[in-house]
Order: sequence, then structure tokens, then C-alpha cells
Amino acid sequence: MDPVRVIEIKKSVFADNELDANNLRNELKTKGVYLLNLMSSPGSGKTTTLIRTIGLLKDKIRMAVMEADIDSDVDAVKIKEATGIQSIQLHTGGMCHLDAEMTRQGLDNVSLDQLDLVILENVGNLVCPAEFDTGAVSSAMILSVPEGHDKPLKYPLMFSVCDVVVVNKMDVLPYFDFDLEKCKAYVHMRNPKATVIPICAKTGEGVEVFAQWLLDEVTKWKQQ
Amino acid sequence: MDPVRVIEIKKSVFADNELDANNLRNELKTKGVYLLNLMSSPGSGKTTTLIRTIGLLKDKIRMAVMEADIDSDVDAVKIKEATGIQSIQLHTGGMCHLDAEMTRQGLDNVSLDQLDLVILENVGNLVCPAEFDTGAVSSAMILSVPEGHDKPLKYPLMFSVCDVVVVNKMDVLPYFDFDLEKCKAYVHMRNPKATVIPICAKTGEGVEVFAQWLLDEVTKWKQQ
Repeated sequence: MDPVRVIEIKKSVFADNELDANNLRNELKTKGVYLLNLMSSPGSGKTTTLIRTIGLLKDKIRMAVMEADIDSDVDAVKIKEATGIQSIQLHTGGMCHLDAEMTRQGLDNVSLDQLDLVILENVGNLVCPAEFDTGAVSSAMILSVPEGHDKPLKYPLMFSVCDVVVVNKMDVLPYFDFDLEKCKAYVHMRNPKATVIPICAKTGEGVEVFAQWLLDEVTKWKQQ
Repeated sequence: MDPVRVIEIKKSVFADNELDANNLRNELKTKGVYLLNLMSSPGSGKTTTLIRTIGLLKDKIRMAVMEADIDSDVDAVKIKEATGIQSIQLHTGGMCHLDAEMTRQGLDNVSLDQLDLVILENVGNLVCPAEFDTGAVSSAMILSVPEGHDKPLKYPLMFSVCDVVVVNKMDVLPYFDFDLEKCKAYVHMRNPKATVIPICAKTGEGVEVFAQWLLDEVTKWKQQ
């Protein structure tokens, strides 16, 4: 297998990230490519969830993944080894988030013309990534059971900008004080329209619900 | 019980955070107060670890806690209810970290003259808080088992600026692919001098090791 490509992305020089993000979305629309921005805390299971999701979708749509991290290429290598799809690693040079221009630098390194879906795995962080529109069509986040159901109270913006909140590690629910109903109520306090999807990425349980949501989104985007 | 005080801290106007942090440390030295900066991902168990630690130390030294969060006062209330010590909530106005001036704004609201130790629970985030010297005498971080042992590879700065890495949620080790020896090796790759302390904040196991380290540090600081 070829080694995973590591792209060193540079800090954005554009002043107007919102304009830049809208331009990027329009370009993606023209090309018929859907971009999903996936966010979470460090260690909540973004990569494992992605591997499961890709397994369910890769024979239905053409997809690639961009893994953003401050350092290392462990995630991009994992995705490539487990799924065989195009997977590149973005190094943010210490930056805690990606903006639209940084996302574009990543997209310049995938074969957009041959793709229906690109998933951006953002830097593991519940604060800064929520503040920057990456140009994605939608944003999803993963909250894992061990983190606790009170997170929407503490990180309001993250929960208000996400269309989907995936609740991962449901298999360890018996060992943690995590109340799914309270979690849903807190999520909806921040964003009444958010869809909450409980899963266990380790066993794959529930991942088909998230995969179906994503497939429907991509189909709609390409038909609109 | 009186309600917890919530302080809205403002973004720093000082250009030279390093100078400001050193000035703050010198002032604390003069007053004989030790400041610990405690960092971690969201949901790794900072507050529960603090409650256990305070339980072991509050009859030996005079201590207070400052809880920094973007929103809510759940942590400060928890600490106050569980331990009875002075506990204030700092709201960062959306900011992802605290710098020295923001820390000082918090310290202006605790009774420094009657204290030996102040613990600052920083915003839950493995990226930005590591970049700003708060003026603390030392920094510690908590990594919890569910987050995975690879975190020092992905968040190098956080692990290199911390004197102590507490590994929390050791009780759920059987349910996660977490290798403590690998974790220690990765931590020491980033910071050869870091002390790694495995604990379970839920049961209290191992917390006495962290509490003793902290007590020794405060004692040394006051004698120097």
C-alpha cells in the first residue's frame, strides 16, 4: 500500500471566512461533492465511527476522508488500512481548528472529480472548530458516553452548529453515570432540530442510522 | 448555602502573556499561594478528581478552586456542594483557554490572603490551553482511559507542558483498548520528566498519590 499523504496546511490569510466558506460550498455544489465536517472531543471515537460508516457506504457512493490533526498520521493510516478509500492527513501546524481556506488546501489534494462525499475529521476539540465555517454542507459531532451528558451545557456553540449528534460508546453505558434522555434534552436546548443517534462504533450497532442519514443527505445534495 | 459566584472574565489586553504570567507567579510567591493549572479534554473527570483531591487535602492546607467554562456553573456548584471549600465559576465568553490576565481576573475574586493553594480547572480542551502560560506554578493534565493511549501523539504540546499526567477511569480499563505502558512511553516521548499517576476518581483509588504530589509541591513552594 502507498504511504498516506500528509499535507501541511497553512494558516488562512483570508479575512472573511464566511464568504470563503460560501464560495467553497458553491464550488462543491457545482462539482456534486458533499462535504461533511465531523467534530468531537479527543478520543470520542471519530475514526472508528468513520471506518464503520465507510464500510456501509463505500459500495454505494464514492468517498474520501481528510484527517486533521496537530501531529501524527495514525488516523489517516487507520482509515486507509481498514477501508481502502482515499485518506489524507492534514497537519494544522498547531492550529486548533480548520477554517474554509485550510479545508480547501486539503480538498486540493483529493480527486474531487471522482467523488460524491468527502468527510473532514476536524481537530479533536469541542470549542474552536465550532467557531469556523469550513465550507461543509453540514456538520456532525460525536459525544461519547464517558464524557458525560452535561456537555451541551458547557460547550453550547458546538451543539448548536451541528445537524447531528452521534452518541458513541453506548456499550459502556452501564459503567458510567450517563443519562441519554437528559443528554437529548440538553442537545435540544442548544439546537431543537438536531438529530441524536446513539451508536456503538466498536460493535457497529446503530451506525447504519448515521450512514443512512449521510446517504440521504448526499443524494439530496446531488439532486438539488 | 450561598449561590456560587460566576465571574465573567474578559479577553486579555496584554500583548506579552509570558511577562504577565511571570509577574503573576512572583506575586503568588510573595503571598505564599501555589497555583495549579489543571487541564484535560471535556469529560475526562477533572471535577471528580478535584473533589477527591480536596477531600484528602482540605484539612491540611487552605484551598480554593476556580472553574473555567464557556457556559454553565455546574462544576463550581458540584465542588462547593461536595467539599464546602471556596469555589468560583469563571465564564470565558466563548474563549477556548485562559491566559495569565484572565487567570488574574479570577484570582481577584478569591481570598488569596487566606489560602495556600488555588486550583484552576481550565477549559476542557487539549489544544489551546497548552499554548498559554496562566501564571500557574505547575500544570497537570488528566487523560482518561476511554480517550485512548495515543493522545500524546496527537496533542504533543499539552503533554510537553504538564508536570503530571493523571490517567483517570482506570476502573473501565477492561472495556477499552487502552495500553498503560504504551501511554507512559508516549507521554515520556513528549516530556521525559512527566510523572504519570493512574487513578480512578470515581472510587478514589490512586488519588492519594496525586494529592501527596500536590501537597509536597505546595510545601516546597512556601518554604523556598
